[in-house]
Amino acid sequence: MNNSMVRYILGNVIKLEGLFLLLPCSIAIIYQEQAGLVYMGMAAACILLGMLLAWKKPENTVFYLKEGCIATSFSWIILSLLGSLPFMITGEIPDFTDAMFETVSGFTTTGSSILSDVEILCHCSLFWRSFTHWIGGMGVLVFLLAVVPMGGGSNMNLMRAESPGPSVGKLVPKMRHTARILYLIYLGMTIIEFILLLLVKMPWFDALCITIGTAGTGGFGVLNSSVADYSVAVQWIVTIFMILFGINFNAYYLILFGHIKKAVKMEEIRAFLLIILAAVIFISIDIFNMCSGLFDAVTKAAFQVASIISSTGYATTDFNLWPVTSKAVLVLLMFIGACAGSTGGGIKVSRIIIQGKAIKNELHSYIHPRSVKQITMDEKEVEPAVFRSVNVYIAAYFAIFLASVLLISLEGKDLVTNFTAVATTFNNIGPGLELVGPTQNFGHFSNLSKWVFIFDMLAGRLELFPLLIIFYPSIWREFLFCKFRRIRKA
Amino acid sequence: MNNSMVRYILGNVIKLEGLFLLLPCSIAIIYQEQAGLVYMGMAAACILLGMLLAWKKPENTVFYLKEGCIATSFSWIILSLLGSLPFMITGEIPDFTDAMFETVSGFTTTGSSILSDVEILCHCSLFWRSFTHWIGGMGVLVFLLAVVPMGGGSNMNLMRAESPGPSVGKLVPKMRHTARILYLIYLGMTIIEFILLLLVKMPWFDALCITIGTAGTGGFGVLNSSVADYSVAVQWIVTIFMILFGINFNAYYLILFGHIKKAVKMEEIRAFLLIILAAVIFISIDIFNMCSGLFDAVTKAAFQVASIISSTGYATTDFNLWPVTSKAVLVLLMFIGACAGSTGGGIKVSRIIIQGKAIKNELHSYIHPRSVKQITMDEKEVEPAVFRSVNVYIAAYFAIFLASVLLISLEGKDLVTNFTAVATTFNNIGPGLELVGPTQNFGHFSNLSKWVFIFDMLAGRLELFPLLIIFYPSIWREFLFCKFRRIRKA
Repeated sequence: MNNSMVRYILGNVIKLEGLFLLLPCSIAIIYQEQAGLVYMGMAAACILLGMLLAWKKPENTVFYLKEGCIATSFSWIILSLLGSLPFMITGEIPDFTDAMFETVSGFTTTGSSILSDVEILCHCSLFWRSFTHWIGGMGVLVFLLAVVPMGGGSNMNLMRAESPGPSVGKLVPKMRHTARILYLIYLGMTIIEFILLLLVKMPWFDALCITIGTAGTGGFGVLNSSVADYSVAVQWIVTIFMILFGINFNAYYLILFGHIKKAVKMEEIRAFLLIILAAVIFISIDIFNMCSGLFDAVTKAAFQVASIISSTGYATTDFNLWPVTSKAVLVLLMFIGACAGSTGGGIKVSRIIIQGKAIKNELHSYIHPRSVKQITMDEKEVEPAVFRSVNVYIAAYFAIFLASVLLISLEGKDLVTNFTAVATTFNNIGPGLELVGPTQNFGHFSNLSKWVFIFDMLAGRLELFPLLIIFYPSIWREFLFCKFRRIRKA
Repeated sequence: MNNSMVRYILGNVIKLEGLFLLLPCSIAIIYQEQAGLVYMGMAAACILLGMLLAWKKPENTVFYLKEGCIATSFSWIILSLLGSLPFMITGEIPDFTDAMFETVSGFTTTGSSILSDVEILCHCSLFWRSFTHWIGGMGVLVFLLAVVPMGGGSNMNLMRAESPGPSVGKLVPKMRHTARILYLIYLGMTIIEFILLLLVKMPWFDALCITIGTAGTGGFGVLNSSVADYSVAVQWIVTIFMILFGINFNAYYLILFGHIKKAVKMEEIRAFLLIILAAVIFISIDIFNMCSGLFDAVTKAAFQVASIISSTGYATTDFNLWPVTSKAVLVLLMFIGACAGSTGGGIKVSRIIIQGKAIKNELHSYIHPRSVKQITMDEKEVEPAVFRSVNVYIAAYFAIFLASVLLISLEGKDLVTNFTAVATTFNNIGPGLELVGPTQNFGHFSNLSKWVFIFDMLAGRLELFPLLIIFYPSIWREFLFCKFRRIRKA
């Protein structure tokens, strides 16, 4: 195992986090908040520590998927650990587990909170909370690839470990170029949303936080009422951008380079939009009696549907009070999730499409046993290896899901709370139903449950396997053996 | 499509049902019940109709998987339609939907009931209800294979369509021989359980009904209290036999022919027993405070665990009142289900094992990308085609499951009721939680929901695809075209 390369990457990640921490400092300066000093100190500490770790670039930059996964998992854990310190030091979230929960929820773009009152936080902390969404949305290692030259075969393996969905990372041969373009698209769309929100007269700080929360499909807001108290215009802009950030970024890449037809033809995006349309129509009818008219019903339905399927998690109404069928539809959307290659979570639409086609093929094989049909996606064959890994992914997904529900249920809370709490954290959404509904929070859970949620959020964001392999015994054996050999050599 | 062969098989199935209907007649004679006349008439009608349909054995006995599936699906639907008539004619279940629900629940070995009071049924109807479990448990077409000479390559394809699990039907080259041995083992174990229950002084009629209900892993009883009012000895005998009937019958086959070591080594059985052991220990501790001592806790835990995992569905206590973790464990067991090749339902332990091994291999491939590991089961390689079909099965399973939950939730009942009602019917178990808990019944659902449950019970018992292909348009085109061609010829 190439330990020094892992160390080098971690050092760079920590350095980056230090730089990111300077942003809440500027917010503190604008609002003249003393908490800014904490962020300033943390920024300095991170930059120092990062420079120390990344001082010497390793000679051997050979780097396999294994190291990619380990670097990714450790990066996300360390990012969260360091990112949670300001909350603890300012005393706004004094408990370590709570601070970790909140920060992991931020970086993994979940948006579930343990805070019952977010409005007491100072501006710089509010901003930092939302900004973690933006960092986590496109991925910190993808950012690293975009700005730090790595060399070797490392880029591909880092990107494969961090990017969501089965297909990402094949855009252009040069990873660094890809990473830059992805971040430029991401930044561009963020700026457009911010400007649009300012145009409809939203306060700039709120607009900033909600924009970066939408971009990362996170869900942290600055008001206890989430997005409910803003104007209808704001709600519609956020609705549209939640959907846009839930779409496969390959599409924007294609549009940017003039292949609009190809982008429009992408099966995953069509399915994603169709699901949204169907859900909005159904829920609008179902909740019509609870609303002040058709427009109100559609506005509420569209916002909640976009929020859940894109795994953002903002709310404009307490959907826990909706009829049970609408709630069932929302729970279903939680599992489907956004497109692969977007900033959203969930199982991903492309995986669902591949499974649906496999079911159709199986039926076909019962009727015509000798004609073997291949699964295709966007007119390309889905390789058996991809199909196999989609299957294994879903199997592992449900195994972790069920184990988590069992662990959470030890607390004795009701089944719907337990089920949707795991669904919402594991799919990186935010709110669930009952005791974790949109007007509730996760503060009432025990520490054990909170750590289960923390694991689920990380596992969901990193798509299981990169996180799971750090629990694989041989990895640790190799790690220790590698150290041991080095000591013997010296 | 070989329509005349399908007709021939259906004719034989109906004839068989006629013969089976003579059994409740004998019960009616013993208890001097007039309802016996209804069963007598139905038996005569079925035998006549069956003889008419199966009069001429088709010349062409060539028979593909497609025809096997269609014959199987139609057989089960017709069996249920005819089997429900006595309930309607005697007026005990006057409504058509209710009578169908009850009969399908019987044949598919589910055991969910729409009756709030089973004790008002006459003995012959009670017996018929339970006997449908026994017929459905091993499969009516397997029975047909055992007694009626078919010829051609039809046997394999019929058995593949009806038998549960991915592996059954490969026991011996001669299908007819296999079918006979399976039914002999089944009959033998049924007789042993019946004798044991008589030995602990259970009334003979109750013992008979409970025995055939256990053998088919069904769940219909003769008392409103299910098995709770019988002695502890009865409860333990039923517990053990529920587990025995949930085990892969290949094991008994191996034992019968002296390969005891091979039977004991079967991975699926070991996993099945381990899961039971773990669940019983966990639940015993969890419900200890609600019981009158350790033995009572273990007795209750063991009975309920065996009942749910084997998909039988008897109850000795209202587990809806248990702590939420124990309830979550039971829900989990509902999905795992029994062994492949047993009379039980659910996803099946072997499918879960294959998926678990696939997850382990995937993790391995992250660490050693170049070493490809094959999945093995009982020291044999799992063929890629089997693995693929397991995956597709699980995908289709969840698709149907979710669609059903959505349809049921239109009624506005709570999520736990909807979720567990679908889980318990689709996995052919019997009771769920909340409004479908062990002290409740399915009578309060609307007709639409009842038909959804009827579909789920059939789809669960026939393992999805044989039932799904009758909804495939090309099958009907072929069927009509075949007719059309014949008319043109004439």
